[in-house]
Amino acid sequence: MLHLYDNLDSGNGYKIRLLLAHLGLPYAWSDLDIFHGASRTPEFLAKNPNGRIPTLELEDGTFLAESNAILWYLAEGTPFLPDGRLGRAQALQWMFFEQYSHEPYVATSRFILRHLPANSPRRAELPDRQERGLQAIAVMEKHLAWRPYFVGERLSVADLALYAYTHVADQAGLDLTPFPAVRGWMTRVASQPGHVPITAVPGG
Amino acid sequence: MLHLYDNLDSGNGYKIRLLLAHLGLPYAWSDLDIFHGASRTPEFLAKNPNGRIPTLELEDGTFLAESNAILWYLAEGTPFLPDGRLGRAQALQWMFFEQYSHEPYVATSRFILRHLPANSPRRAELPDRQERGLQAIAVMEKHLAWRPYFVGERLSVADLALYAYTHVADQAGLDLTPFPAVRGWMTRVASQPGHVPITAVPGG
Repeated sequence: MLHLYDNLDSGNGYKIRLLLAHLGLPYAWSDLDIFHGASRTPEFLAKNPNGRIPTLELEDGTFLAESNAILWYLAEGTPFLPDGRLGRAQALQWMFFEQYSHEPYVATSRFILRHLPANSPRRAELPDRQERGLQAIAVMEKHLAWRPYFVGERLSVADLALYAYTHVADQAGLDLTPFPAVRGWMTRVASQPGHVPITAVPGG
Repeated sequence: MLHLYDNLDSGNGYKIRLLLAHLGLPYAWSDLDIFHGASRTPEFLAKNPNGRIPTLELEDGTFLAESNAILWYLAEGTPFLPDGRLGRAQALQWMFFEQYSHEPYVATSRFILRHLPANSPRRAELPDRQERGLQAIAVMEKHLAWRPYFVGERLSVADLALYAYTHVADQAGLDLTPFPAVRGWMTRVASQPGHVPITAVPGG
């Protein structure tokens, strides 16, 4: 059985939980206390030398890291991977955009606000990170202005990758009111059959 | 004909030039002065709303962004994409690692040292970025200790993605002496037939 090493509050982990729910795949699930070093123990570093969750253990004992690579692995051969060479490259374009231009700003702002003390010196990073987060969401808004989903006419791994932290942007101190296309897209993603919220404990 | 919008000094652009050289594909090439806003003009933002090079214009006029997504597009159907579902996911794992845990530290340190004035306040970022860059290279060292390439037994897009900034790590102020497996791998990558240096002007 697949085994997902994760943390319930992680948007990167939620991407995988969301796709596994859509696919109806059973899996074992471990909730790691990453805020107290659980992803940096020798035992976990043997699974993922980069010390990050989510990490997926496959049936044969292979460990796969990087949330968007895990999404790709699980989606191969399913409708969640776009058909065609261009569609697949466009999905990856948005997934790399997510990890480079979105997650470091939206997810990190959320982390600072939710998991660091109010007097943390890292609060000083917030204005710049929040501004860049809004810039990323503005790029999404432009793309979604006349499209239902990021690639093609249906939900794909690109949408799941971008939904994970966008839908909790308020927890990063970001106001999505000026982005009606993004808000409409979030409603479409959340209304799909099989959708689960980030707070749902797998198997719980 | 393919048209690559690029900057000669960019490692992200070099990834694409390197794969196109290996594949023997002809392409038009534009060297944008990104240090003076050439990727933020209205004309360029119409090609890539995220305002970044490299951006590849396909034969049909479609624009594709994100260096590693472009690599994937070009490599489909060639030996540079690993065979098999797991191999493809492992290649993506290393490509997402590159964009999240390597490029923001190695490439950004190199940018600060090469393209900002010596009295730039951004110099203050160097110690932290260089330390994280070395951490990424240590993860690579561990993986390459008993493997010739990142995935399987031959050069793939994962190697090209990681080679681009690792081989100029000295320009980021990073000393690779303590990483013999990484240095051996760089020699293997550079000795492949079809290899071109980052300084080679396409068509020049």
